Amino acid sequence: MISMAILGFGVVGSGCAEVLTQNKDLICESCGSEIEIKYILDLRDFPDSPFADRVVHDFQVILNDPEVSLVAEMMGGSHPAYEFTKACLCAGKSVVTSNKEVVSNFGTELLQLAEQNGVSYLFEASVGGGIPVLRSIYVDLASNRIRSVNGILNGTTNYILSSMKEHGTSFDDALAQAQKLGYAEANPAADVQGLDAARKVAILCGLCFGKLVCPASIPTTGITGISGKDVEDAAKLGYAIKLIGHADVKDGKITALVSPRMVPLSNPLSGVSDVFNGVLVNGNMVGDVMFYGPGAGKLPTASAVVADIIDIVSGKGGAVKKPHFVDAVPEDLADFSSYACVRYFRVSNSLSEVSAVFGTDALHLLTGDGYVSVITAAPMSEREADEICEKLDVLSTMRVL
Amino acid sequence: MISMAILGFGVVGSGCAEVLTQNKDLICESCGSEIEIKYILDLRDFPDSPFADRVVHDFQVILNDPEVSLVAEMMGGSHPAYEFTKACLCAGKSVVTSNKEVVSNFGTELLQLAEQNGVSYLFEASVGGGIPVLRSIYVDLASNRIRSVNGILNGTTNYILSSMKEHGTSFDDALAQAQKLGYAEANPAADVQGLDAARKVAILCGLCFGKLVCPASIPTTGITGISGKDVEDAAKLGYAIKLIGHADVKDGKITALVSPRMVPLSNPLSGVSDVFNGVLVNGNMVGDVMFYGPGAGKLPTASAVVADIIDIVSGKGGAVKKPHFVDAVPEDLADFSSYACVRYFRVSNSLSEVSAVFGTDALHLLTGDGYVSVITAAPMSEREADEICEKLDVLSTMRVL
Repeated sequence: MISMAILGFGVVGSGCAEVLTQNKDLICESCGSEIEIKYILDLRDFPDSPFADRVVHDFQVILNDPEVSLVAEMMGGSHPAYEFTKACLCAGKSVVTSNKEVVSNFGTELLQLAEQNGVSYLFEASVGGGIPVLRSIYVDLASNRIRSVNGILNGTTNYILSSMKEHGTSFDDALAQAQKLGYAEANPAADVQGLDAARKVAILCGLCFGKLVCPASIPTTGITGISGKDVEDAAKLGYAIKLIGHADVKDGKITALVSPRMVPLSNPLSGVSDVFNGVLVNGNMVGDVMFYGPGAGKLPTASAVVADIIDIVSGKGGAVKKPHFVDAVPEDLADFSSYACVRYFRVSNSLSEVSAVFGTDALHLLTGDGYVSVITAAPMSEREADEICEKLDVLSTMRVL
Repeated sequence: MISMAILGFGVVGSGCAEVLTQNKDLICESCGSEIEIKYILDLRDFPDSPFADRVVHDFQVILNDPEVSLVAEMMGGSHPAYEFTKACLCAGKSVVTSNKEVVSNFGTELLQLAEQNGVSYLFEASVGGGIPVLRSIYVDLASNRIRSVNGILNGTTNYILSSMKEHGTSFDDALAQAQKLGYAEANPAADVQGLDAARKVAILCGLCFGKLVCPASIPTTGITGISGKDVEDAAKLGYAIKLIGHADVKDGKITALVSPRMVPLSNPLSGVSDVFNGVLVNGNMVGDVMFYGPGAGKLPTASAVVADIIDIVSGKGGAVKKPHFVDAVPEDLADFSSYACVRYFRVSNSLSEVSAVFGTDALHLLTGDGYVSVITAAPMSEREADEICEKLDVLSTMRVL
């Protein structure tokens, strides 16, 4: 019998208790031993919950109980989640988490602490919710040098963009609807401004390239500037607009960014709609593989947390295959101004002015009422894109995947 | 240093040597020790290969060398691959394979032998080529009771169907093209008649439901009966025709089948084109997750074989999480005649005759030159579908996903 504690009994925390209860037999068989939820740490009480008697308000009770060998941290936010995780690892307790904020900022230190104390720190649920993407990268694609990753990593923004595309809803209405359905937080800033996706890109850099990139150093543009006109224009040109977290490595230098992108319909990410997430990984042997599924939600996210628990318990601690990375240093990062990709521009200039700038090289050209839309034939750098913006009257511009 | 042997130096076997060579540093780091290819077993010689000096023609050399602790079987076919695998496992050598024929027919016995001898038998590459799907099921989705799986499991047939849809190519021309491009074998029977997909469904039943279903007991229809008219009609109705391997479990009874199906465009499998594979798994906690990527090919398949090798070497044998199943017995299988799904019919009857049979319940109805196409509003059993075929003059019928 393994005794564990849950830190934070919110959406994911209570989902974790539900998965462990509903699939108890299956999990017990897979682990080779029963898992008991001995404590649940939360500021609140839950008198109506079947777990009411496990609720404690003092973290020290958990930390000081030698019977507790495993802790699932689902509190969210950096503090005190980080401090509690550190204390647990130092006390020889393995920790699993869905907390992307903690992993993206303190992951390297926490993995080292786990290693030093002979325990595990796993965080499958921190990227892609219930989709098995992280372990797939460090176990199943271990025979590959990962070249790039592109992901739809945030369900809220994907719901909003899908809604704008499918039903012509405005950004504000789509956001309100997402909040009503419980997809978006009351304060949706971290979602719509791209910070949530940037944290996940940071973690993906850790697993794909061995370097955890600080989320603050990832150039990030959210979707607040996307208009109905952009969405409509993209559809006419044969693209879907998606908030894409991108990372690649070339000559040992990592480029990571988050921005809305026009995704061609031939790319499988273009079909990832609503609150679903999709992560497309390119390895030097396997080529492109994509993982698709529910990127958030109570039970899907909890399903990934419990998979980590099973991995640790069935591996008896020491045998688990562990993620590993170090913090990226400035020299690991490519100069962003030379990052090149195909671009979309919508300008209010005349067709002849547009042709004068792009030549006859534009891949797609669409003229509308007072505007010309262009998809460039070749990738251009950030610097070159800025130059275009000086020469033409740009109404909108976006990267193309 | 780990010494291994490759059995069969064909497409996948030589790919395996290439992956181990090209990504040597990475793999060594991941494993914690170097992997040496000590022997390659093949009937042929490869004087121009950098591995020419490792080629042996006598299996006993490998079997009797105590230094060889791991064998990668990529010979294809049941015999002597099965006998060689058995001998290796009994001699305390772990075996990894891409051979779906052996796994689907003898997997249970071989897993037991591995267990008894304290070694591993892994076969990630046997389903979905380079896509990490099997380990994802038994590790990442271990917290889920798997309810169903639907997969595009054969690249050749998917290439043919994509070609018929995109370019209006006939079945025969598309097949010839697939053979020219090296996707289809000279004898494409196992592909186009669905046997290859049935073998993969058998293995998926083992991992999803713990019961390896004998491929011969899986009702299997290939794509040889699909006409250009079917493909065209499907597109008009908003569907894509795909060869779908399906398995589900209800009340402890497994239904498994392989047949062409009309897949609605809202289902992510509909977008899986060309030689790509996609596997959609439904778990009781996570819901739907899909794995997508190259389902065949030299390096992608080899990438999965090498992932199994890394898993075994880095886990030092004993610690690897292992797949586990037993053979299904007749009582494990549901009565196929009561398997129900939505159906498509194209009939040469009049609209009034069609309405008399289906009532006003048909979900989609399309009338063309001398025919009426119908998608039923509700699932119907195989028995009920047979009854429709007696009442109407059915030109074509297909299951809908």
